[in-house]
Amino acid sequence: MKNLGYYNGKIDIIENITVPMNDRVCYFGDGVYDVAMARGGKPYLLERHLDRLYTSAALVRIGMPMEKAELEKLIFGLMAKVDTGDLMIYIQVTRGTAERNHAFPKGVPANLWITLTPKTLAAQDDGITVITLDDTRYLHCNIKTLNLLPNCMAEQFAKDAGCDTAVFHRGDRVTETAHANIHIIKDGRIITAPTDNLILPGIARGRMIEIAESLGIHVEIRPFTTEEMTEADEVFTTSTTAPCRRVVEINKSATRMADKALFAKLQGAIYADYLNTSR
Amino acid sequence: MKNLGYYNGKIDIIENITVPMNDRVCYFGDGVYDVAMARGGKPYLLERHLDRLYTSAALVRIGMPMEKAELEKLIFGLMAKVDTGDLMIYIQVTRGTAERNHAFPKGVPANLWITLTPKTLAAQDDGITVITLDDTRYLHCNIKTLNLLPNCMAEQFAKDAGCDTAVFHRGDRVTETAHANIHIIKDGRIITAPTDNLILPGIARGRMIEIAESLGIHVEIRPFTTEEMTEADEVFTTSTTAPCRRVVEINKSATRMADKALFAKLQGAIYADYLNTSR
Repeated sequence: MKNLGYYNGKIDIIENITVPMNDRVCYFGDGVYDVAMARGGKPYLLERHLDRLYTSAALVRIGMPMEKAELEKLIFGLMAKVDTGDLMIYIQVTRGTAERNHAFPKGVPANLWITLTPKTLAAQDDGITVITLDDTRYLHCNIKTLNLLPNCMAEQFAKDAGCDTAVFHRGDRVTETAHANIHIIKDGRIITAPTDNLILPGIARGRMIEIAESLGIHVEIRPFTTEEMTEADEVFTTSTTAPCRRVVEINKSATRMADKALFAKLQGAIYADYLNTSR
Repeated sequence: MKNLGYYNGKIDIIENITVPMNDRVCYFGDGVYDVAMARGGKPYLLERHLDRLYTSAALVRIGMPMEKAELEKLIFGLMAKVDTGDLMIYIQVTRGTAERNHAFPKGVPANLWITLTPKTLAAQDDGITVITLDDTRYLHCNIKTLNLLPNCMAEQFAKDAGCDTAVFHRGDRVTETAHANIHIIKDGRIITAPTDNLILPGIARGRMIEIAESLGIHVEIRPFTTEEMTEADEVFTTSTTAPCRRVVEINKSATRMADKALFAKLQGAIYADYLNTSR
């Protein structure tokens, strides 16, 4: 198959899959998701993504429809049906199918969605341009829910301004981009925000910290401001589909890019980690 | 038909309607909606609801798939197919069907959803119990979007605490309930929050203000605090499906209910307006 969509046991190409109008995602965005990448049929850090999915579900009180080991087995089985092993694995769980009502439906199982889409990592030499934007999202950004309209609005706002994505700030604190974590390098150290309720605890962020530390780079975990970002030696983002991307422009001004050696070392190690392991 | 679901021209009972997995509502909650009530086949304030729907769509930059007059005609045509004319009319528009991507898809028309469900107004003598809860929602509560997970969480939190619904407050300012506007009566005056980005500009709220003024009741439009709510003579909510409901308990303490005459006069007039007109 060229791609694969799965919904509660039903399997077809994504474009052919339909879901009930009364799936609660349709009225409330009532669900959570996670995304992992696979290369040559080997998922990268899948366990961490599944752990986070189960955590997200617990935080919004959705009972997962199967155990983690069973879900993992299901994903591998589905991957075998797709033409390529270079895939984006997207998994989503919604709070069941029921007549529209804000309160949770009783005795209704969660719905399980999976899509497998051919995709390779964003190229290592890509630099991105960003625009800053007031963070008006809810205060649950630590949970990977399907309430993503503000993220979509921000991304499109950035595109319309000729930028690749938007960087949110709440007051003067930089939080994250429309769909990635963001970090700065200053005086040889990486500074990255703590994983509170204002940012997603990115799997790529966590792995970046491990890799940086294994390279002897000091990582300082604390909030940083828009001013610090503007004056940083390097600014970069991490996400599952683009694990280490340099920010080359903020609000149409070039970033300093003043620690090319350190950034290159870090980025190289992050890509090597992805290419060399089958975690 | 016992109820009716409509999706881009497809018509069936709601339980039989399915939608594409790639409808952007499924990944992002990327859409807006509105709800009106009909009695004996006559919708109440439908034009106001349609106006708000088109406003919501414009605010999130979704191009409506048809003109207002055409949509109104469509709704009446669909209502004729349902067994009863006492209905909840639910209309939703989502940002088209496309491969998952935060930025808006190009050249893709919006999807139109309608459901008609047998329903009558909440009984006039119902009183509700509420629990207060920190308002952690996004800062776009003026737009009726499908990003409603925090509202669902709040409603269920209230139910689990043995209450009917939750009242949000941001700091000490009371905003609204999980799915209604909330107001207080003090010294013969109604106090209701302004329609800024923290609350929905309720159609029932707007009509309540008109009716109150026609009765000679002074309406003061300003934010009020949780303390003012606790000490108010009367506390009540307005929404399309329950246009005037007294709050009888806040956090397990009885409200004062000290202006029964004024509340009864207002509530009576609101229900009479619904029963006597075909707006």
